[in-house]
Parts: sequence; structure tokens; C-alpha cells
Amino acid sequence: MSKINFKPNEDRVLVEPAEAETKTASGIIIPDTAKEKPQKGKVVAIGEGLKDKPVTVKVGDNILYGKYAGTEINIDGKEYLIMRNSDIFGTI
Amino acid sequence: MSKINFKPNEDRVLVEPAEAETKTASGIIIPDTAKEKPQKGKVVAIGEGLKDKPVTVKVGDNILYGKYAGTEINIDGKEYLIMRNSDIFGTI
Amino acid sequence: MSKINFKPNEDRVLVEPAEAETKTASGIIIPDTAKEKPQKGKVVAIGEGLKDKPVTVKVGDNILYGKYAGTEINIDGKEYLIMRNSDIFGTI
Amino acid sequence: MSKINFKPNEDRVLVEPAEAETKTASGIIIPDTAKEKPQKGKVVAIGEGLKDKPVTVKVGDNILYGKYAGTEINIDGKEYLIMRNSDIFGTI
Amino acid sequence: MSKINFKPNEDRVLVEPAEAETKTASGIIIPDTAKEKPQKGKVVAIGEGLKDKPVTVKVGDNILYGKYAGTEINIDGKEYLIMRNSDIFGTI
Amino acid sequence: MSKINFKPNEDRVLVEPAEAETKTASGIIIPDTAKEKPQKGKVVAIGEGLKDKPVTVKVGDNILYGKYAGTEINIDGKEYLIMRNSDIFGTI
Amino acid sequence: MSKINFKPNEDRVLVEPAEAETKTASGIIIPDTAKEKPQKGKVVAIGEGLKDKPVTVKVGDNILYGKYAGTEINIDGKEYLIMRNSDIFGTI
Repeated sequence: MSKINFKPNEDRVLVEPAEAETKTASGIIIPDTAKEKPQKGKVVAIGEGLKDKPVTVKVGDNILYGKYAGTEINIDGKEYLIMRNSDIFGTI
Repeated sequence: MSKINFKPNEDRVLVEPAEAETKTASGIIIPDTAKEKPQKGKVVAIGEGLKDKPVTVKVGDNILYGKYAGTEINIDGKEYLIMRNSDIFGTI
Repeated sequence: MSKINFKPNEDRVLVEPAEAETKTASGIIIPDTAKEKPQKGKVVAIGEGLKDKPVTVKVGDNILYGKYAGTEINIDGKEYLIMRNSDIFGTI
Repeated sequence: MSKINFKPNEDRVLVEPAEAETKTASGIIIPDTAKEKPQKGKVVAIGEGLKDKPVTVKVGDNILYGKYAGTEINIDGKEYLIMRNSDIFGTI
Repeated sequence: MSKINFKPNEDRVLVEPAEAETKTASGIIIPDTAKEKPQKGKVVAIGEGLKDKPVTVKVGDNILYGKYAGTEINIDGKEYLIMRNSDIFGTI
Repeated sequence: MSKINFKPNEDRVLVEPAEAETKTASGIIIPDTAKEKPQKGKVVAIGEGLKDKPVTVKVGDNILYGKYAGTEINIDGKEYLIMRNSDIFGTI
Repeated sequence: MSKINFKPNEDRVLVEPAEAETKTASGIIIPDTAKEKPQKGKVVAIGEGLKDKPVTVKVGDNILYGKYAGTEINIDGKEYLIMRNSDIFGTI
């Protein structure tokens, strides 16, 4: 994870989604079409927060989030998710 | 209930749902398809709370919650529910 | 009404609904299928309240509430209603 | 209007609706089926109010309210309306 | 405009709607069915206001309001509109 | 722009919409039916504002606003728009 | 980017959208009809902000925003987007 040239606005958090699993726990290879969009990621940048909505995660945190959380944005040719702090379920 | 490697965000609570009943009160075995999703569980991790929305349950509390409360999340291969503190009806 | 092993969360109130009337005022027996779900009950447990939403009823109060107020929950094999304090119309 | 055994909750007000008119202004008798539900009533009991929503009417006040204001409740065999203070248009 | 026996509740305002125009500007008589409901009126009574919603018009003010503002109420056989202060566009 | 006899209520602003353009930039005459409703206007009167919603434009300001902002009102035979301060995009 | 004659109202921000890409990363020319509306732009003017909604970007900032953020407005014959500060995802 190299330093990213993006500063999220307000209480937003920029997330690098984890790679979709390519094998099941028992080692069976999952074809591309059956891969579930992962709901796990790493925080790569955080906003300053709002007065009553501070950002409660740190850069580098591994997080879980909802299936429909955030919006995909492309920065320097790479896909990220930008979401509000409150869309984050927690850190692992 | 072993210690879990997950810290809920904001006013969220991580819940381990109780096993579905396998017998009725009178001892009749309930087939899998007829088992009701239980609405009872144990709190396994809690968030820090928000300024006006403190978390009011503790780790280890047995709780009741609504049929549609929370979102299922998988942590270390086990299914949990992540919900907001206010989705919890009370403790038993 | 024995002491119940349940502590409502936040501004919630646990209510034991009154039995449905089995006779009309004039003494006619009402068949089961025509019995109206009563909207009267007794408070059996109360939450701590929220900062701006205190609980304003006490355990033992007889209350009236709306037809669709609350959610049924089963505690120790008995049906109760769990509702928010503001769903209660008043005490009789 | 005898004293009623009911204490409204929060900012609620218990209202005894006025009798529907049985004659038009010019003296014609209105059949039961054509009677309009009156939107006039007398305050018979008031709640303590909420912090930012005080009750602004008094017991005994004659009030006007909207056609769909309140919920009918039966107390001691008599029909009343229970409504929030802000549903009341004003006093006459 | 005689003194009216009605006190609006909270931030409500009682308005006597202006008569619908019976002639066009150029003197043509408008048939009853084509008359537009006027959106102009005179304030005849005002409420005390709410803490954060003071009443900002005075009795006697001529006001303009939206086509669907307020509710018609009949007081002493005369039709008025009861509306919230914020439904008033301004004074003329 | 002569002084207008209208005082907007609360955080409202009275706007005199600009005339629809009759020619394109290159001088072609636009037929009446193709004229776009302009979204530009001049502030002719302002309200006192609300506690947390001050009016931030002045009489005489040229403003831009959204296509569906405001309500048309007729004052002394002339069409204006009455809108809330927050409907104004900015001043030019 | 020359100085623009427009002052956004409240917490609004005026944005000059980036030109749609005319080539793919690998140099292939993209036909006009296939060009995606860019979601990148430069801040050209900012409002004063609201009490609880300060503007958190500066004139000259390069920003990313959502596909449906803002409203197109034409100033001096050029297309801009006017959006609220909170519609901005972040700065690059």
C-alpha cells in the first residue's frame, strides 16, 4: 500500500477493497463469475471528520463494511471505495 | 465464546446468534426447514458509542432483538450479526 | 405478575397485554375468532431511557397503546410486547 | 364532563369529541348516515409534555382539530380521541 | 373584520381568505366556476409560537400564501384557513 | 426596478426573473415557444431570516437559481418568484 | 482558469469539470459518444459556508465527486457545476 494522493472530504474514508478470494477454504478454485465482491478492505486515507461525526478509523485499519457501502472511484488507475465513516461495521 | 478479533465501529454491537431450537418445548424434534431464525444472542464485542448514542449493553450480555435486526458478517469462518445498539430490545 | 428476567434497552418498555375480553358488556360470549386484540396492558419492565427520551411510565402501570404498537417477544414461554415509551398513549 | 381516570403520556391530550350536529343551521334534521364526524371537542386530560414540546392547552378547553387527528380510544365504555398537542388547531 | 373567538395553537395563524375576484383587470365578469381560489388573506388570530418557530406576522397583516397552504375550518359559520406561520410567503 | 410593496416571510426571498433571451448569442431570433425559462433574476425583497437560516443575499443582487426553485406569485399584476434563501445557487 | 464573476451561496461550491478523456490510457481515441462524463473538476469559487456546514475545499483544489452531484449552470457562456460541499468526495 503506497501513499495515495487523495484527501477524503468531511467524514469520508478511502478504502482499498481486499482481493476477491480465488479459492474456497477447502482449496477449490472459485471461477471469476462466482467470486463474491469482498466486503473487507484497508483504510488508505481519511477525512478530517465533521463536528458531530468524527472519523473513528485510522489509515492502515482493516475494516468490514456492508455490501452496498461506498462508491467506487478510480485514482491513478486503481479502483477504491469512498464511503462515510458510519458505513464501516468495524475493524479486524 | 472465545475472544473475537473484531472491534465494532461507532454504536455497533457484534452479536453471536443463539442456535435455533431443535426441539419444541414438549420434546418434538423440529425439522431444519421449520426452524425459526432465533432472535436471541450473546454480545461478543461493542463499539465506543457515539456522543448521543452510547452503547448500553456489555460483552457477554444475552439479548433479544428484532427479526430483521442487523447484518450477517462472517469473521474467521463464523457467522455473526452486526447491529446498532438501538436495535437491541433488551437483555435477559 | 411475577418478577420478569428481562431489562428493556434504552427507552423501551415491556408490556404484558391484557387478556382479550371473552364477553361483551351485556354478557354475550365473544367467540375466539371475533376477539379483538386488546390495546391495554401492564408495564412489567422499563429501560433506563435515553437522554432526551426518558421513560415516563412505571412498572405496574396499566397502559393503553396503539393497535400496531410494539413487537411481540416471547420470554420464558409467555408473550409480551416490547415498545418504545412514546408508543404509550397513557395510563389508566 | 366527569373526572376521567386516564393520564395521557408525554405531549398527548385526551379529547372528548363534540356530538355530531343533528340539525342543520336552518333546522333540517340530518340523518345519521350523513352526519359529519365533528372536529370540535373538549380537552379532558393532558400529559406532562416533552422538553421541547410542552402541552399548550388546559383541561376544559374547547378545541378544533384536523379531520384525521388522533386515535379513538375507549375508556370506561366511552369513545375519546387521544392526540398530540401539535395536532390541535386552536381553542375556541 | 370583527374580533374572532379563536386562539390558534403553537405557531399557527388563522387567516380570512380574500374574496375571489369577480371581474378581470379589464372588467370582464368571471363566472363562479372559473374563479380561482385566492391566495391572499388577512391574519385574524395568531398563536404564541414555538421556541424555535416564532410567529412573525401580526393580526391585521395582509398576506400571500401557497395554493395548498392551510386547512379550512369553520368558525361561527364562516370559513377560515388555519396554517403554520412558515406557510406564509410574506406580507403586502 | 421600483420599490415593491411586499415583505417576504422568514428566510424567503422575492425574485424578479430575468427576461427570457430573445436572440441566441449569434443573433438568431428565438421563437417564443422555444424560449427557455431563465434561471437568473434580481432580488427585490428579502425576509428577516430564521435563527439558523439567515438570508445571505441583498436586495439588488443578481442571482442564479434552480429550474424548479420557488413559487410564482403575482404582486400588483407582475409575476415574481418567492423562494427560500437556500434555493439560491449564488450571485453574479 | 480566469477569475469568475460568481459567488456561490451558503455551503455551495462552483466546479469547472475536467475535460472528458479523448484517448484511453493505451492511446486509443475515444469517440465523442462513448466519452464518460468526468467526475473530476477544479474548484473555481466557494460560498461562505453555513454555521454547521463549513466549506472544506479551497479555490483551485482538484476534486472528485459523484456521478450525479451538482447542477449544471452556465456562466458567461461556459458550463460549470454548482454543488454542496458535502457532495465532494475529496481532493487530489
